[in-house]
Amino acid sequence: MIKVTIWNENRHEQTNPDVKEIYPDGIHNAIAGFLKEDFEVTTATLDEPEHGLTEEVLNNTDVLIWWGHLAHEDVQDEIVERVRNRVLDGMSFIPLHSAHGSKIFHVLMGTRTGELKWREADDTERLWVVDESHPIVDGLPDMIEIEKEEMYGERFGIPQPEELIFISWFSGGEVFRSGCTYKRGKGKIFYFRPGHETYPTYYQKEIQQVIHNAVKWAAPNKRSPKIHLGNVEPLEAIK
Amino acid sequence: MIKVTIWNENRHEQTNPDVKEIYPDGIHNAIAGFLKEDFEVTTATLDEPEHGLTEEVLNNTDVLIWWGHLAHEDVQDEIVERVRNRVLDGMSFIPLHSAHGSKIFHVLMGTRTGELKWREADDTERLWVVDESHPIVDGLPDMIEIEKEEMYGERFGIPQPEELIFISWFSGGEVFRSGCTYKRGKGKIFYFRPGHETYPTYYQKEIQQVIHNAVKWAAPNKRSPKIHLGNVEPLEAIK
Amino acid sequence: MIKVTIWNENRHEQTNPDVKEIYPDGIHNAIAGFLKEDFEVTTATLDEPEHGLTEEVLNNTDVLIWWGHLAHEDVQDEIVERVRNRVLDGMSFIPLHSAHGSKIFHVLMGTRTGELKWREADDTERLWVVDESHPIVDGLPDMIEIEKEEMYGERFGIPQPEELIFISWFSGGEVFRSGCTYKRGKGKIFYFRPGHETYPTYYQKEIQQVIHNAVKWAAPNKRSPKIHLGNVEPLEAIK
Amino acid sequence: MIKVTIWNENRHEQTNPDVKEIYPDGIHNAIAGFLKEDFEVTTATLDEPEHGLTEEVLNNTDVLIWWGHLAHEDVQDEIVERVRNRVLDGMSFIPLHSAHGSKIFHVLMGTRTGELKWREADDTERLWVVDESHPIVDGLPDMIEIEKEEMYGERFGIPQPEELIFISWFSGGEVFRSGCTYKRGKGKIFYFRPGHETYPTYYQKEIQQVIHNAVKWAAPNKRSPKIHLGNVEPLEAIK
Repeated sequence: MIKVTIWNENRHEQTNPDVKEIYPDGIHNAIAGFLKEDFEVTTATLDEPEHGLTEEVLNNTDVLIWWGHLAHEDVQDEIVERVRNRVLDGMSFIPLHSAHGSKIFHVLMGTRTGELKWREADDTERLWVVDESHPIVDGLPDMIEIEKEEMYGERFGIPQPEELIFISWFSGGEVFRSGCTYKRGKGKIFYFRPGHETYPTYYQKEIQQVIHNAVKWAAPNKRSPKIHLGNVEPLEAIK
Repeated sequence: MIKVTIWNENRHEQTNPDVKEIYPDGIHNAIAGFLKEDFEVTTATLDEPEHGLTEEVLNNTDVLIWWGHLAHEDVQDEIVERVRNRVLDGMSFIPLHSAHGSKIFHVLMGTRTGELKWREADDTERLWVVDESHPIVDGLPDMIEIEKEEMYGERFGIPQPEELIFISWFSGGEVFRSGCTYKRGKGKIFYFRPGHETYPTYYQKEIQQVIHNAVKWAAPNKRSPKIHLGNVEPLEAIK
Repeated sequence: MIKVTIWNENRHEQTNPDVKEIYPDGIHNAIAGFLKEDFEVTTATLDEPEHGLTEEVLNNTDVLIWWGHLAHEDVQDEIVERVRNRVLDGMSFIPLHSAHGSKIFHVLMGTRTGELKWREADDTERLWVVDESHPIVDGLPDMIEIEKEEMYGERFGIPQPEELIFISWFSGGEVFRSGCTYKRGKGKIFYFRPGHETYPTYYQKEIQQVIHNAVKWAAPNKRSPKIHLGNVEPLEAIK
Repeated sequence: MIKVTIWNENRHEQTNPDVKEIYPDGIHNAIAGFLKEDFEVTTATLDEPEHGLTEEVLNNTDVLIWWGHLAHEDVQDEIVERVRNRVLDGMSFIPLHSAHGSKIFHVLMGTRTGELKWREADDTERLWVVDESHPIVDGLPDMIEIEKEEMYGERFGIPQPEELIFISWFSGGEVFRSGCTYKRGKGKIFYFRPGHETYPTYYQKEIQQVIHNAVKWAAPNKRSPKIHLGNVEPLEAIK
């Protein structure tokens, strides 16, 4: 069974009554709610020791889901480095929404992933499927409509996605690359845009389906090749 | 259970005693031998009516494996078009070795896929894994050595692969992009180089593992999005 | 100096007074108008012998721009094959707007490039730049607004672009991958969406800039490597 | 005229007589020698103040070429960050050979770019062209043979290249992705493998041609789009 750790900053939920009303147990538990039937799910939050991301926790994680927003800077560099190493060693990583600005996504991408346009104005968002063959779109309609969401607009400061799965339309006039995959080392990465804390986005069935599919897609190889590196003897005689 | 159809030209086996000795039941049955335990496997060959690829057969196929070499031109254009349409509609396609020159691979790629260097001279081939995160390399070493194989050398007339998984080294001095994935419509494609008819390549465990993994990777979505096309009404009022 | 041939179906201009009013000399001449200062420009149209695309014309073309719509089927297969071969041999190809459904784009892509959503309803189109480093966006703003255009919506039946440069937003609620590059053989391809025949799109400065940039980007290598193919001798002794 | 800064660690040249004999004025000046006719060339080295990479120098650089090997750790983090920012803002970057292990390549890629196989054993290297349409291969043969070089072997710890241009064959049995492009922000990146300090590789005409071509390809846009970011007003009324 795939082992999923859902990490949440969990700060808005403590301080903003509107968020607390929507996600009374935190965004992490809302996500855990629709994943726990099919996966082995654990949660971790910023204010736990080591942000809940000890070596042991990470070594027991196949797929790490990440939600953060206002406290990116509070994540310790040492933990960021630990997570990065686990991704390169084969743990998959699914940053959601404002996790675009997280330190860990930033160091894995190498670019200014925090850069984009944004607006909190109840835009309607439509996520159009542009890669119909991808496992992440299984069971979806060809467009997901979210009645109200925060807007994110291009130019998004990411490297060109290896696979672009969704493009978002916003009623205010912008577009966004909303579902993007990357591979880094042995780890797979899926960035997925929706999920502002003041909207009930993670209760929407299609959004749950995307995240559920993404976890399955991200499951690491069980017997990944052992890679030999460094100074090596030739396999053939060199003349 | 994933439904696999293995298509083989099956001509060398009838006319060349050396090939018949290696593959007495045909290459298709050698491949079926290591897939049938985990998948629902059928075979089809060139000299059957409609080359064994009736509408019914294709509609009951999730993944089509293709081996052809000296009789590419004998495959009827109508059947090529039928296969192409099924790929675009979601059947995956795994052309092996000399199937690089098949009509169906050619029309799906749009380039001169028949173009490459080749030599039958007992080169040693080493396939180096360059994408260690890919499901197709699960359970492999970081390099597969084939003692003797036909050489294929660059420049191979393909579009840039969407994912490049293996690069081959040949003792005569050439390299080759040996494991390449593409998506076309709802279908996934994996070209895999090894398997000249005069060598027992398909009995090698690592090669079997690659093809086995590829079938699993290629399994189509069960509930692919229904795509709406053509003239559509606006979703928003246009001023 | 880069040699550009602009091919136009040139049928709407003969039969539809609205189109004739906007493009009295044909779309091809409107495009020639803003390219001829910097490039060596020729035009060709469907109803000329061999559609104006003789071997000699194509051999003297570095970049072929293509506009077609209602008469894709009237383009002879022999000429399509001739153009395809020239692209693979190094002539670049820039299909505009409804040329997505042309035979030549179809055979080069291998997919159902005719498939998309469409609507003629005076949508506003905004093309957002998503690849800010690309030569094709030089001199542009970060978004091009076209007041009124035909809508094209996803899912567009193309292979994943090698580079995605523009994404369009439409007021009716759709998005589209509007600027896409591919390489096929020695040829470069840039699909660019805008330019419905009933709108004066090709008179808009930013659209002209994109096409001008695209021609420069598409200029073929002057001394492309001579590729050796077929049966070759080994470069190293094979044991 | 394109402004090129060639950065060299310049340590081997001071301490190793064999290297000094091959590159008496340093690798940077050997490279400057074949670029200065067509470009405006400056050099900078590790032991200059700020490693010769002041804000002013970088702001006057279009393309930064980088050679480093044994002193990657001596490059100050502050300068690495400065270079990274300039790349994202539009300066192109060409890391050569052992610069795969440099801090700056590492932070731009996000992966363990130092990871690969290596051997100093006078392997013959053959770089095969696999992207014949690319400007970087203009004027080359379809294969570059280097009589003796250090071997680098896969698995190379890079993200999948956006364009793969060369694949190397080594006589000892390995392969390597030797010419890889990426885009990061407004900057273009070309990693090129050859050039170990104990071989006269940078005097070989084809190698010089590749680097010359790469500088031309990497020339930044002159009028790159001004990107608007952050909190923005809607372009359309939101209902």
